[in-house]
Amino acid sequence: MGIIYSEKPANWAGVFTTNAFKSAPVIVSQGKMDEKVRALVVNSGNANAGTGKEGISDAEEMCAEVARRLGIREEEVLVASTGVIGERLPMEKIKDGIKRAVEQLSPDNFSKFAEAIMTTDTFPKIVERELDGGKAFLLGIGKGAGMIHPQMATMLVFLLADADFPSHQLKECLKKAVDVSFHCLSVDGDTSTNDSVFLLANGMSEMDDVISFQQALNEACVDLAKMIARDGEGATKLILIKVMGAKSKEEARGVGRRIAVSPLVKTAFFGADPNVGRILCAIGNYPFETPPLVDIFIGGEKVAENGVIIKFDKEKMREFMKENREIEVEIELKRGNSSAIVYTCDLSYDYVKINAEYTT
Amino acid sequence: MGIIYSEKPANWAGVFTTNAFKSAPVIVSQGKMDEKVRALVVNSGNANAGTGKEGISDAEEMCAEVARRLGIREEEVLVASTGVIGERLPMEKIKDGIKRAVEQLSPDNFSKFAEAIMTTDTFPKIVERELDGGKAFLLGIGKGAGMIHPQMATMLVFLLADADFPSHQLKECLKKAVDVSFHCLSVDGDTSTNDSVFLLANGMSEMDDVISFQQALNEACVDLAKMIARDGEGATKLILIKVMGAKSKEEARGVGRRIAVSPLVKTAFFGADPNVGRILCAIGNYPFETPPLVDIFIGGEKVAENGVIIKFDKEKMREFMKENREIEVEIELKRGNSSAIVYTCDLSYDYVKINAEYTT
Repeated sequence: MGIIYSEKPANWAGVFTTNAFKSAPVIVSQGKMDEKVRALVVNSGNANAGTGKEGISDAEEMCAEVARRLGIREEEVLVASTGVIGERLPMEKIKDGIKRAVEQLSPDNFSKFAEAIMTTDTFPKIVERELDGGKAFLLGIGKGAGMIHPQMATMLVFLLADADFPSHQLKECLKKAVDVSFHCLSVDGDTSTNDSVFLLANGMSEMDDVISFQQALNEACVDLAKMIARDGEGATKLILIKVMGAKSKEEARGVGRRIAVSPLVKTAFFGADPNVGRILCAIGNYPFETPPLVDIFIGGEKVAENGVIIKFDKEKMREFMKENREIEVEIELKRGNSSAIVYTCDLSYDYVKINAEYTT
Repeated sequence: MGIIYSEKPANWAGVFTTNAFKSAPVIVSQGKMDEKVRALVVNSGNANAGTGKEGISDAEEMCAEVARRLGIREEEVLVASTGVIGERLPMEKIKDGIKRAVEQLSPDNFSKFAEAIMTTDTFPKIVERELDGGKAFLLGIGKGAGMIHPQMATMLVFLLADADFPSHQLKECLKKAVDVSFHCLSVDGDTSTNDSVFLLANGMSEMDDVISFQQALNEACVDLAKMIARDGEGATKLILIKVMGAKSKEEARGVGRRIAVSPLVKTAFFGADPNVGRILCAIGNYPFETPPLVDIFIGGEKVAENGVIIKFDKEKMREFMKENREIEVEIELKRGNSSAIVYTCDLSYDYVKINAEYTT
């Protein structure tokens, strides 16, 4: 259980899951798009998704309880959940958790918040950026592919700033930042019912330089995306897929995603197997009208040229893949000038273990 | 190494991979669409993909060698390969294999052919159908998700009949049969560079009743698709996903595929975990305009109603999932009258083992 509180009402923007079965907290938070907000409450362990109308009431009750404890309006409270899908929230426990979280509220406690929302994440995910030479501040906290009862992993990200922007501008900035970070992230190809990215800015610093704010926001989001990929369920490696020479951003990202979701590519990286054929095949599953004359590089070494896999020192490459916890794969499509970076991880025994052995 | 030979030139139709990087044998066989054919040669162990122009020459040389040995024209020979992507064929070994395969040609040897094209398949995949009360015959042979050197799994299917249809009619029949079988099959969501389904009909029986032919062909293809799913890499269970009440065939198949490719759903089935939330979430990743009021059944028992997960006996369901090697999941979307069945398998430790531990 974690609570974020802002002394001043904050403008905010959110990017939420595209899943048709949005969780109750996503629906409730989305309904407050036009409000200024002062607090955000998060629970882990139960996603409050697939719970119908009763789930909506529970999410609303969470907001009301936080508002009551903090002496603010219910409309000023956002809500997020992560955990088991399909079970009602244990409201007594939740209310008790809210009471304790409010008691512990303190500006220095943000690392406790980052820990409170962890499930099987192996490390808390926090980024900090100074804005305007230290006059303003951006704090980002995320949770990734971990679970209490191993169910659907949920990505939750909270970005908090004391910068001063109207909500429509926050919305634009957040969209741009999410496009180059969380939308380029895949652990296992499933989009959860609860995925949410919140950006709150309460304007207390009066910092309003949108260009430097956008830059800091992009950096913070990319850093969090990398942390989430590195800490994907069972992951042993972070894989950075740089796609260049695409006809459009969408194409670059689409090709990168094909590689990132291929279980055959991901298991090969887990096994330190320089299996270029699987990468080529994954690229080919993007609906190109004609086969691209693709070059492929792993760790800077060329392994395919013009769509043909070339000879390279496999033993050396195997060693390289074994020794590095972060591996870069470059794809040069030679079709245009767009590029994208996609973040993913390998697929290990532990992924299967986490998701099969434990039961609900 | 395997060879199929027809006494009489046969009309034929083929359905090939949609991957942009089609293998050399796919390109060479597709170039013979307008020919009648008399033979088909298959090798396993090397996919002859990602091999450029030299790969094309090698595939052509395979056809030429078969033609020479059988005393027929090169244009009358089709070719298919499965195995490692990105390495040249060992042509001396291939030619030697062709010599031996031609020497062993016999009408009774089709089970040997089914075994010859196996890689890590755990059983040969053969279906037989009598046509026209036994006056004609349809034989289907497939290979699924196995590998010599574990690389990209390739699906190859050969359907042989002595029925008498022009190639445009075979093409139509094959398209219909593939739509309800192999296009509804997923082991791991990757489409290989070599996937091919061939249908040859040499007309020796003069059977030309297209309705009963279509029915037999559909049945044969569905049976082979089920065998391939059941024998997916590391699979312990066949999962049949019946999607009903969809607005279109495409929607029904699309929803089924979302479930079939979800690693979270597949690991849950491996672990006999009745994790309905994961199924609901996978359905929700289909781009519906509004959330469907979906009902979900596992093994005939209702587990979700109108998009809300309901109470059911989890212990009993866990036992059911543990004890059965074939599990039916029914999805009722209540949006329309279209339906589809999608075939898949679970995701186990052995999938990771097969694809990570062995190296090229």
